[in-house]
Amino acid sequence: MPQYSTFSADYLRDFTTRVFVHFGVSHQEAAIAADVLSKADLRGIDSHGVARLRTYVDMFTIGRINPKPNVRIVRDKKSVATVDGDSGLGLVVGPRANEIAMEKAANYGSGWVSVCNTNHYGIASWYSLKALERDMIGWSMTNSSKIVVPLWGGERMLGTNPIAIAFPGLKNPPIVIDMATSVVAFGKIEMAERAGIPLPHGWIIDEKGEPSMSPGDIYKGGLLPLGSTREMGGHKGYCLAAMVDILSCVLSGANWGPFAPPFALFEEVPKDSVGKGIGHFFGAMEIDGFEEVEVFKKRIDDWIEVFRKTKPAPGHEAVLIPGDPEHEAEKVRSKYGIPVMEAVVNDLKEISQITRVAFELER
Amino acid sequence: MPQYSTFSADYLRDFTTRVFVHFGVSHQEAAIAADVLSKADLRGIDSHGVARLRTYVDMFTIGRINPKPNVRIVRDKKSVATVDGDSGLGLVVGPRANEIAMEKAANYGSGWVSVCNTNHYGIASWYSLKALERDMIGWSMTNSSKIVVPLWGGERMLGTNPIAIAFPGLKNPPIVIDMATSVVAFGKIEMAERAGIPLPHGWIIDEKGEPSMSPGDIYKGGLLPLGSTREMGGHKGYCLAAMVDILSCVLSGANWGPFAPPFALFEEVPKDSVGKGIGHFFGAMEIDGFEEVEVFKKRIDDWIEVFRKTKPAPGHEAVLIPGDPEHEAEKVRSKYGIPVMEAVVNDLKEISQITRVAFELER
Repeated sequence: MPQYSTFSADYLRDFTTRVFVHFGVSHQEAAIAADVLSKADLRGIDSHGVARLRTYVDMFTIGRINPKPNVRIVRDKKSVATVDGDSGLGLVVGPRANEIAMEKAANYGSGWVSVCNTNHYGIASWYSLKALERDMIGWSMTNSSKIVVPLWGGERMLGTNPIAIAFPGLKNPPIVIDMATSVVAFGKIEMAERAGIPLPHGWIIDEKGEPSMSPGDIYKGGLLPLGSTREMGGHKGYCLAAMVDILSCVLSGANWGPFAPPFALFEEVPKDSVGKGIGHFFGAMEIDGFEEVEVFKKRIDDWIEVFRKTKPAPGHEAVLIPGDPEHEAEKVRSKYGIPVMEAVVNDLKEISQITRVAFELER
Repeated sequence: MPQYSTFSADYLRDFTTRVFVHFGVSHQEAAIAADVLSKADLRGIDSHGVARLRTYVDMFTIGRINPKPNVRIVRDKKSVATVDGDSGLGLVVGPRANEIAMEKAANYGSGWVSVCNTNHYGIASWYSLKALERDMIGWSMTNSSKIVVPLWGGERMLGTNPIAIAFPGLKNPPIVIDMATSVVAFGKIEMAERAGIPLPHGWIIDEKGEPSMSPGDIYKGGLLPLGSTREMGGHKGYCLAAMVDILSCVLSGANWGPFAPPFALFEEVPKDSVGKGIGHFFGAMEIDGFEEVEVFKKRIDDWIEVFRKTKPAPGHEAVLIPGDPEHEAEKVRSKYGIPVMEAVVNDLKEISQITRVAFELER
């Protein structure tokens, strides 16, 4: 069993903020960037929280991230725009571009922004949750470096390309959808490898493009799209990943499909480039443009209550509402702190040595 | 093997137009409605073409469809609106609401319309293809009567709730995504039943909520969402179906989830109602608001060409581009006509007797 140390979200957020400031990010933007990572930790999406800080530090160190980007609108028509992130931290570019989408929604009922020249932006749902604060429905998508094969393909062509959208309730917590368009997250393969257990059929292919149940085969193989096989709808997962790729990258002029630059140092950089950085896509729709905000929220409450009462299948206790597990995690972790794996704690200690930002255990 | 008769698309479209006119739809709108069904036949989506005409006739006959609806915007803010379809034919309400979305896109860069008080609108991609004619990216979604169970659920709570989106190429045909959010379409279960073959594991549950491979169990059971099981991402298909349900119905005031009224006479009408009719959701984004239209279309061509060259997995010839099978069908059927199953031909003959609209074989 891995060892964990527990930290308060505030402590980790503060440490992360100072690390980003060390690399030249303004305090205000560093705090927002740290909040994106912190939200992942609070919501139990450990792979996207402080565990990722090491990679951001690596990217700053090799000069791949511009700490003071001039994030600007390069083309614009009322409710839509294309934004160039100027190679900034995805955790800075993403929140700014999302802000532009929300400003447009405040002015035109909705706002839609495709972003190029950016990099990894954290959890997709952070952006959708921001829109809820303004009584908007928030959409968020991003591409990422290639790991997913199209249905019937034998090589990596797409990222895990997540889609997020959130809807506010009145008395209930919001419905929050945040899903990779691959059959599973890469992290699940890593966990199986560490545990030494075989994978279910339909998760990955090996180097030759053959179905595989050996976790280690992922490194030269690839993940299958949601649906896995033709029979089970693998073309649909491929279609969703393609949609995210086109809205985020083809529309903005970012590197689409297999050309997406990698986020981690050990990943191979594609030889060719077809655009700038990776891409995101944000949308915001003002609820008030469609319906009285309270009426809509009350209907979402009704939806939640009806779906919660679905007769469960034998062997299951209840049907969940999208966002339930993350909401539960947030309640527990806000109170009791964030468990951080020893390997990640060691990364944080190293980052502390590199940056001279103090880091103490058990805070 | 079932028997087929072949008809030209023009002949079937003309017959369908006259049938709708017989029930009081204006000639202009009947022609559009017939075009929606015809497009399904041309694109090889036989379940959504003239095969559905019988059900539309039934709905007109029992007075469930208003032939001359006052389709109107009930709430509006620049790029977004809610539309009430006044119980009109979905094939009339859908095209009008989609037109409103495209008009908004022409004025504000994008347009988003949630529609209540409507019914079955044909294939989702007809609407996305319309947007392409105006150099827009078209989105289309709809709910439908309950047949899909949420992950871990033991009863029907959602429709097959499709999502469509289309992107234009320059020299290549467009990328057209049109997918039900269930693991398969209901029609596939019917086909297996007729052929007397068992279903793959993970498509349906029976009356008790247990997994089943017997096609006949669908009638008291339900379809699983895309992904099927927790392990294979069934929560993701459930999330997508929920998203479509909320955007189409909760936002517009239509009947969401299990309350959606049925489209076929033999389906049970839900005891309770939480809104008006079923719901659709349309979006249109002007490409020119994001990028030069030609530049974007050229990039889509590049995307298509790169993905077509993906190394195929062993045993497969090539990776397809979303929309390939439908595009191929359209080429063949435009030239050689539409094969119509004997059972459907008999329906058309009966419709001819009811409506006195002439119908001849082999035209």
